[in-house]
Amino acid sequence: MATLDIPHQQRAAVRQGEGETTKTVVKNIDVPQPGPGQILVKVKWTGVCASDKSLLHDEWKPFGVSMMPQTNGIAGHEGAGEVVAVGEGMNNRWKIGDRAGIKWIASTCGECEFCLNGVDEVHCIRQINSGFTAPGTFQEYCLADGRYTSKLPPGVKDEEAGPIMCGGVTAYVACKRSGVRPGQWLVCPGAGGGLGHFAVQYARAMGIRVIAIDGGNEKRDLCKKLGAEEFIDFTTTKDIAAEIMRITTYGAHGVIVFPATKEAYASAPSFVRPGGTVVAVGLPNDPTVLAGAPPIMLALRRLNIVGSVTGSLKDVEEALDFTARGLVHPILTRGTLENLDEFVAKMKAGKLVGRGVLQVAA
Amino acid sequence: MATLDIPHQQRAAVRQGEGETTKTVVKNIDVPQPGPGQILVKVKWTGVCASDKSLLHDEWKPFGVSMMPQTNGIAGHEGAGEVVAVGEGMNNRWKIGDRAGIKWIASTCGECEFCLNGVDEVHCIRQINSGFTAPGTFQEYCLADGRYTSKLPPGVKDEEAGPIMCGGVTAYVACKRSGVRPGQWLVCPGAGGGLGHFAVQYARAMGIRVIAIDGGNEKRDLCKKLGAEEFIDFTTTKDIAAEIMRITTYGAHGVIVFPATKEAYASAPSFVRPGGTVVAVGLPNDPTVLAGAPPIMLALRRLNIVGSVTGSLKDVEEALDFTARGLVHPILTRGTLENLDEFVAKMKAGKLVGRGVLQVAA
Amino acid sequence: MATLDIPHQQRAAVRQGEGETTKTVVKNIDVPQPGPGQILVKVKWTGVCASDKSLLHDEWKPFGVSMMPQTNGIAGHEGAGEVVAVGEGMNNRWKIGDRAGIKWIASTCGECEFCLNGVDEVHCIRQINSGFTAPGTFQEYCLADGRYTSKLPPGVKDEEAGPIMCGGVTAYVACKRSGVRPGQWLVCPGAGGGLGHFAVQYARAMGIRVIAIDGGNEKRDLCKKLGAEEFIDFTTTKDIAAEIMRITTYGAHGVIVFPATKEAYASAPSFVRPGGTVVAVGLPNDPTVLAGAPPIMLALRRLNIVGSVTGSLKDVEEALDFTARGLVHPILTRGTLENLDEFVAKMKAGKLVGRGVLQVAA
Amino acid sequence: MATLDIPHQQRAAVRQGEGETTKTVVKNIDVPQPGPGQILVKVKWTGVCASDKSLLHDEWKPFGVSMMPQTNGIAGHEGAGEVVAVGEGMNNRWKIGDRAGIKWIASTCGECEFCLNGVDEVHCIRQINSGFTAPGTFQEYCLADGRYTSKLPPGVKDEEAGPIMCGGVTAYVACKRSGVRPGQWLVCPGAGGGLGHFAVQYARAMGIRVIAIDGGNEKRDLCKKLGAEEFIDFTTTKDIAAEIMRITTYGAHGVIVFPATKEAYASAPSFVRPGGTVVAVGLPNDPTVLAGAPPIMLALRRLNIVGSVTGSLKDVEEALDFTARGLVHPILTRGTLENLDEFVAKMKAGKLVGRGVLQVAA
Repeated sequence: MATLDIPHQQRAAVRQGEGETTKTVVKNIDVPQPGPGQILVKVKWTGVCASDKSLLHDEWKPFGVSMMPQTNGIAGHEGAGEVVAVGEGMNNRWKIGDRAGIKWIASTCGECEFCLNGVDEVHCIRQINSGFTAPGTFQEYCLADGRYTSKLPPGVKDEEAGPIMCGGVTAYVACKRSGVRPGQWLVCPGAGGGLGHFAVQYARAMGIRVIAIDGGNEKRDLCKKLGAEEFIDFTTTKDIAAEIMRITTYGAHGVIVFPATKEAYASAPSFVRPGGTVVAVGLPNDPTVLAGAPPIMLALRRLNIVGSVTGSLKDVEEALDFTARGLVHPILTRGTLENLDEFVAKMKAGKLVGRGVLQVAA
Repeated sequence: MATLDIPHQQRAAVRQGEGETTKTVVKNIDVPQPGPGQILVKVKWTGVCASDKSLLHDEWKPFGVSMMPQTNGIAGHEGAGEVVAVGEGMNNRWKIGDRAGIKWIASTCGECEFCLNGVDEVHCIRQINSGFTAPGTFQEYCLADGRYTSKLPPGVKDEEAGPIMCGGVTAYVACKRSGVRPGQWLVCPGAGGGLGHFAVQYARAMGIRVIAIDGGNEKRDLCKKLGAEEFIDFTTTKDIAAEIMRITTYGAHGVIVFPATKEAYASAPSFVRPGGTVVAVGLPNDPTVLAGAPPIMLALRRLNIVGSVTGSLKDVEEALDFTARGLVHPILTRGTLENLDEFVAKMKAGKLVGRGVLQVAA
Repeated sequence: MATLDIPHQQRAAVRQGEGETTKTVVKNIDVPQPGPGQILVKVKWTGVCASDKSLLHDEWKPFGVSMMPQTNGIAGHEGAGEVVAVGEGMNNRWKIGDRAGIKWIASTCGECEFCLNGVDEVHCIRQINSGFTAPGTFQEYCLADGRYTSKLPPGVKDEEAGPIMCGGVTAYVACKRSGVRPGQWLVCPGAGGGLGHFAVQYARAMGIRVIAIDGGNEKRDLCKKLGAEEFIDFTTTKDIAAEIMRITTYGAHGVIVFPATKEAYASAPSFVRPGGTVVAVGLPNDPTVLAGAPPIMLALRRLNIVGSVTGSLKDVEEALDFTARGLVHPILTRGTLENLDEFVAKMKAGKLVGRGVLQVAA
Repeated sequence: MATLDIPHQQRAAVRQGEGETTKTVVKNIDVPQPGPGQILVKVKWTGVCASDKSLLHDEWKPFGVSMMPQTNGIAGHEGAGEVVAVGEGMNNRWKIGDRAGIKWIASTCGECEFCLNGVDEVHCIRQINSGFTAPGTFQEYCLADGRYTSKLPPGVKDEEAGPIMCGGVTAYVACKRSGVRPGQWLVCPGAGGGLGHFAVQYARAMGIRVIAIDGGNEKRDLCKKLGAEEFIDFTTTKDIAAEIMRITTYGAHGVIVFPATKEAYASAPSFVRPGGTVVAVGLPNDPTVLAGAPPIMLALRRLNIVGSVTGSLKDVEEALDFTARGLVHPILTRGTLENLDEFVAKMKAGKLVGRGVLQVAA
């Protein structure tokens, strides 16, 4: 096993308590060693995703979804850093010093019905998830599956690569999933947010015309700068659907619902034309949020309501490439592992600008 | 204008009253004459669709959808018969004695955004609908748009062609919309019903494996005879989703929701595998019926919930062709115009076997 | 019939002689009157297409394709101008003074197998073609089918709209037909030519990465300015396929063959990766030009060789929209009807810069 | 390593000589042992593919394609049998006695650009091929990649499974690649041959209407029995394209070229309607065979000429499933390893009925 000088102990942000009052504490834990097929990644930067918030604060417990004991209380799934040890059988793929990205899907089996369909690997029935069923990226040294970890291309900084691992690829895949073609209209509610500001840029780079929805002049300026052709301020616009009809004549071709709110889901179907597509990304707890799309509307207007979540290894590679080519850049709010709880709190209050990233190892 | 000996008066089933207590009465009215671009069709048989019931009984009034005055109280949109007069400009397309089929979409503009997309003509913004915005097929002589009326192929009887005009094509298009490929699994709740029994046959003819759901041994025998590979009796099966998993391992690839019930919509998403498709066809009044597919399920399992309604001129041609080739045949309950109210009542009670058809002109 | 003051006589460039020595002469002919369904368009500018050259010079006679007598010797199918008379039945669609575009497909039947498939209208079995089976746009007043003539949007000048009617839409549709997605690679041989310089811009606006191939520094500068990411100079590059591999690792995702030469067709298949697509647009006479893609290469590498020609009414609308949004602009060489033969000669010699356009009526 | 009683020596048909006069001789060689990730399969039956003939007789040498030394002179890639030893790391996937199928693609890397696209694994840049770059199935005990070897479902006999591994899946994938939908027309030249007779059955099971082309009444009867709706006897039909037009009005939607002949490729494009698809499967040496599809025909009729070769692991699973369901069965000519040269000779003379299979181990 090739290796570097690696310390025995490392710093990690470990979960304490449970429910809404969960905290994390930065403390020393052992550094793991890579087994066969694994690599050890020194995490330089990690993004903080809304799912980290949901998992740390047990928001999905009603759906039976909680951080598993195998995580050792370490969340995080948007890591970028450097390979410091290469396990057995991975020498043909990785060498010490390579730059690597760790994502939500930490590993897949490569053999199940879904893996065999390629992009359906996202549904691999034996997948392992960073910070959910395995220790995540809120630690300095993170084990990763050598086969499924992403190579980081030149031209993408670690602090950018982290957020692309989940936030970026989620936005990118949602744009693809919308089926909106170059020259057609896509509506992005929450366009100035952590996912939304990625989607505006990806859509624009894909030749799609974007109608951004968000509140306030600061968000307007941001969205316009990122490439939105139109901006609708929800704090001042009475009838958003009517405004979209004015711009697009028959409605947009697609809308991506990033906000995890009942209102966003209730209004989205009225933004699209017959045959249009609503992409569901935000995850509200309320199961009745699709009430805005009764079957009579779905059927008569032949709408499509489709779910989208994260992306495949290939999707991540494509998403990174847009940044390497200078077309998509995350807006970042920077901190360190010690700021994790503060970032989560800001996220909860909707006050985190762009995507939060934490410097982990120097 | 080419023409036959046509009487001045004809029999029609005309709506009387309103709301749930609406009746129809068969009486004499004038026979219309075709204008430019029109043909006059002597209706031999007409199907009775659940939409006729809904329109006659004002069930969709809460959605602002009611029979328009231009119908003269004549519903019906599944007509098959013979051309008896050809209006100006239609002689190159129709001649006296040709067999013709009248459908829900009576005419389209051919010029709007949606018509120019071909199959999207279903959303033509200037479309006219039989029995909704124009007099329908519950009369002996019905005016029809020469450009948009369907030619009936040899090998399809009038009494069969009628129900295919709406019921058949709706089932056929829903099968296509499901995206299920030959060799994959499609679930059909309500498989023994007016639409369902069509879908079982179309799916089978398309190489799709069908899991039929309905109640009772009679329905079981029917569904099996029509080509369903598996049958689940909802009156005796406790956990239908579990039974579908047992058959398909990971869930079906698609499900078409024909029943206009909350239960059908609530359970359908649990029948499909990740990436699977739920086709919404049945039109319940309750707008909250999609509560069975909260965004967290939609997104994480990347489901597709798509609406489907009727079909295009081309779809109808394809649907008829399956019958001409002997692969799809409607189960019929026959009557005459005088039986319309009785058929509607039976339909309401869920007691009409297969598709109801009325003989109109001899 | 609404109308303006229209002269009885007009100027037209009429074909004289036949074969390679054909000339055109500008002379006075009668102005026609629109019949039912027609409009009369005062042609301000018309593009000159390579097909005009081929038809005027009988290049396609070996394939049984010649200008028909009904053209009265008037070619041209890239016209843009103003409606000056509206025939019966077209008042709801056109009014005097509207801006209109005339294209290769002058009219379709709207009823055949292909028209009913929407975008397949391009194969309408009863289509009429400008300058081939009907008088074209090399005249001041051109009759046009009111249903099938394109509306010109604000923001597109007549001199730009003309060339988009055929050259622009051909390039745009070829880009779509390539199946190349945003972020993937498309190779454009002849990138600096009449069609190629359109394709570079459309592809770029669709988020596609372009490798332009052409000869000389002037072409290099042009292609780079239009948005090509890479340029390969065929006059100085020994192994073009190797250079493409260097840039793309496994080959491009698609290539559009615009040049009507054996060399272009012979080399194209070697530019793409397994599963890649070669779009055939250029029309060489030599039927053996696909020898560069023997079945063993086609099959083992699962290539796609697909033909593309002009576009539908909807495609033209989309193509115009890119120009209205400032993303695609033709490079023009301007002249008048009197310059037609000169332009054709230059085209033959490969010396016409960008697209040739002639001012027809003032 | 789990294992059975396995002999040290086995019988294999080993290549002798080269070029058209190559022979094979059955002799004793050592039985190999499975390394990590491998399994050892006792081959009960193996199909004999036209590619085996081409490789054994050096037919593809002009294209630089020859059997590699690593094969030890053992061709064959349609094997079916039983797992007799399981290498390290494969115990979770295979156990002694499992039924296994060996195909053309013996193994893929799972990591390259193409593997990461799922079905594109067929283009894996590091793939290993049975009987081409590794010893094939013309031996009693064949090493196989545990990850990439196919599981055989109940209901498919070994002698059937063998030919499906390559011949069956090639025909099945070609049907999918044609894009022909249920109810549309597919033409199969060579319908009674080794690949063709599979395609007729798969197409039929997919709801596709088949026009079979072959010569003589015996082939007619066979094709009709397998499900062809129409049969064209090329020995008695003067104008095959005209006959196809008579049946289909505008031409078929697709055609699969199985015969490796110039004639088959020259005529195929004239069988399809505008927008139709020609699938290239047969591998003639003559690189000019696409001369039947000059660009002017390709472009104006917007044809698709697409290559197809073998299939993915998932495709094989699907192909096997049609046989397990009783819908597709190979016509077999049976022999033993000793008959290999005789079978190859018959194949060359076009006299082998259906697919040749050899019993290898008892």
